[in-house]
Amino acid sequence: MTDKDYMKLAIELARQAAGQTSPNPLVGAVVVKDNQIAGMGAHLKAGEKHAEVHAIEMAGDKAEGSTVYVTLEPCSHYGKTPPCADLLVRSKVKKVFVAVTDPNPVVSGRGIKKLKDAGIEVEVGLLEEEAAELNKHFFHFVQTGKPFVTLKAASSLDGKTATVTGESKWITGEDARKDVHKSRELHDAILVGVNTVIADNPSLTCRTENPKRQPVRIILDTYLRTPEDANIVIDKLAPTWIIVSNQADQEKINIFEQNDVKIIQLSNDTIEIEEVLNVLGEHKIMSIYVEGGSTVHGSFIKNSMFNELIFYLAPKIIGGQAAPASIGGEGFSKMVDVPALKINEFTQIGSDLKIVASPKKG
Amino acid sequence: MTDKDYMKLAIELARQAAGQTSPNPLVGAVVVKDNQIAGMGAHLKAGEKHAEVHAIEMAGDKAEGSTVYVTLEPCSHYGKTPPCADLLVRSKVKKVFVAVTDPNPVVSGRGIKKLKDAGIEVEVGLLEEEAAELNKHFFHFVQTGKPFVTLKAASSLDGKTATVTGESKWITGEDARKDVHKSRELHDAILVGVNTVIADNPSLTCRTENPKRQPVRIILDTYLRTPEDANIVIDKLAPTWIIVSNQADQEKINIFEQNDVKIIQLSNDTIEIEEVLNVLGEHKIMSIYVEGGSTVHGSFIKNSMFNELIFYLAPKIIGGQAAPASIGGEGFSKMVDVPALKINEFTQIGSDLKIVASPKKG
Repeated sequence: MTDKDYMKLAIELARQAAGQTSPNPLVGAVVVKDNQIAGMGAHLKAGEKHAEVHAIEMAGDKAEGSTVYVTLEPCSHYGKTPPCADLLVRSKVKKVFVAVTDPNPVVSGRGIKKLKDAGIEVEVGLLEEEAAELNKHFFHFVQTGKPFVTLKAASSLDGKTATVTGESKWITGEDARKDVHKSRELHDAILVGVNTVIADNPSLTCRTENPKRQPVRIILDTYLRTPEDANIVIDKLAPTWIIVSNQADQEKINIFEQNDVKIIQLSNDTIEIEEVLNVLGEHKIMSIYVEGGSTVHGSFIKNSMFNELIFYLAPKIIGGQAAPASIGGEGFSKMVDVPALKINEFTQIGSDLKIVASPKKG
Repeated sequence: MTDKDYMKLAIELARQAAGQTSPNPLVGAVVVKDNQIAGMGAHLKAGEKHAEVHAIEMAGDKAEGSTVYVTLEPCSHYGKTPPCADLLVRSKVKKVFVAVTDPNPVVSGRGIKKLKDAGIEVEVGLLEEEAAELNKHFFHFVQTGKPFVTLKAASSLDGKTATVTGESKWITGEDARKDVHKSRELHDAILVGVNTVIADNPSLTCRTENPKRQPVRIILDTYLRTPEDANIVIDKLAPTWIIVSNQADQEKINIFEQNDVKIIQLSNDTIEIEEVLNVLGEHKIMSIYVEGGSTVHGSFIKNSMFNELIFYLAPKIIGGQAAPASIGGEGFSKMVDVPALKINEFTQIGSDLKIVASPKKG
């Protein structure tokens, strides 16, 4: 096996814990001694052992003189666990491959420096792109203090989410809908507008087989119009947070709070997406999966406040200018203002198409 | 080389003449004697030699005892040229592989019978699907008397063809636009509504490098509102036909006709798609490439009068319920009425996506 193979393995180990480490990153580590794997580890849960600790413990005496492959720069500070860089030094490993440096600009490079100062050979950047992609939510959150925003829309090929009379069941097929549940599992929160709650009364839970967690359900609801008997209020299947403006009725807020619904009241009489993201960042929400409706999507897009788009397109043509469009709101007036996207993924899923895109850099 | 290889070669020979044989089909033929290619041919132009004639002539004496691979059942009747089945019999070929039988139900099988009656071994169905696909325009035309309808639309990922203020340049990139010109070349006619002519004054020509032909430009124009100085009227770069209702002004019709524009007047006060297709079929238009606008597309879709859809989706989100949708008109009211499509092709073309779909059979 090559260095690349070992790092790939470390990345795959890290990936297994997707959905269960928040607000910590996904990290994997592999210890190799005399061309054989001596230890493997992954960070599994915030507050518990880091990947390097698991891998070094598994390696035991073989750690000495070994090569370690780790997907993220080993930490150099005391958090809930002691610094991994110190452990690697103490274990007398010979060489460390680091896929990507710590995203936090304040501490980035310190773990690597500690290793080098102790005479350990360090190589940085092996499979860097894959490792960064794996932790894109975490990296974005650490660097901006705001959650990574994934916008998801499902429409016909001509961009309609329902017929002109409002019929919307079903646009996409079962496979695409299953894929949505997998995506929900990978985000800290699911976000929709209150109109979606009123119209569809969704439960917004993650219905994969044995989901690792139920993301927080977040409703944007300027005037607190969410019905008190909505599924998201009464089913207790996941935490529910409602973000309201300063126009929401205090008495109604009290009723919801007595019902274990967290109310986050913003300072203005409208809900501004930027404030939403700042507040969610303060609440340690690293990633949100925005499921609409069309007006909510429109606001995120108009403000260029999204990091990834997932479009499911069903092989159907619904037609009609008046039929609901996948992205509503005002839209852009000028073509020059329309943000350019980069297609990252482009696959068939059941009979539907899945397109993953992100804003083009630069 | 295997039988399949030879038939593939025959199909490739046939394909080279795409865009130059109308109203005849594309046909290729390969003559093989003693495991070597003795002759190759393709039908190049209506009225000229058939594929088998070219291939048999090239083979000369070697035709006797040879195996012939032909993409379409050899003709058995006297048209502009004598029947190819007779030629194969006269040439004493030993065996004939036929990819697909004649689509015309009245004569289908007669060519094959002629060969068999003469003691020639015949095998039908080798690469049948590819061969039928190659001539899908011709097959549809022969079987229905109507042109094969390809609907082409270009939009953002959210199905918009312009911003809310009407800006539409450019949605898709240069590669997609080049691909459109290639598709134009493969159709007998390009069709748009008069609103597109008024709004964009397009030339609707095929601007590939050295195009094989310029398809007929067809305008649907109920009241004959096409401007007399429109590019399609004055540039003489391709034939222009305007389809009008019985409401069109006769004096204006005369002016256009003096300008070499063919006016086709329908019997009603509205333009019905079915009548359009019947009339175009009578005019030997085997295929039309419908480029919109949105209302024209909507009518074809609503009446389920299309055989293929080509969607170009640009990696952009324009947004806005009021921004023009790719497919307009009334649209469908009920999800059960929305025709199910089958995705045939799904590729990236430059930075855009190209999706080819057709109505799901059965």
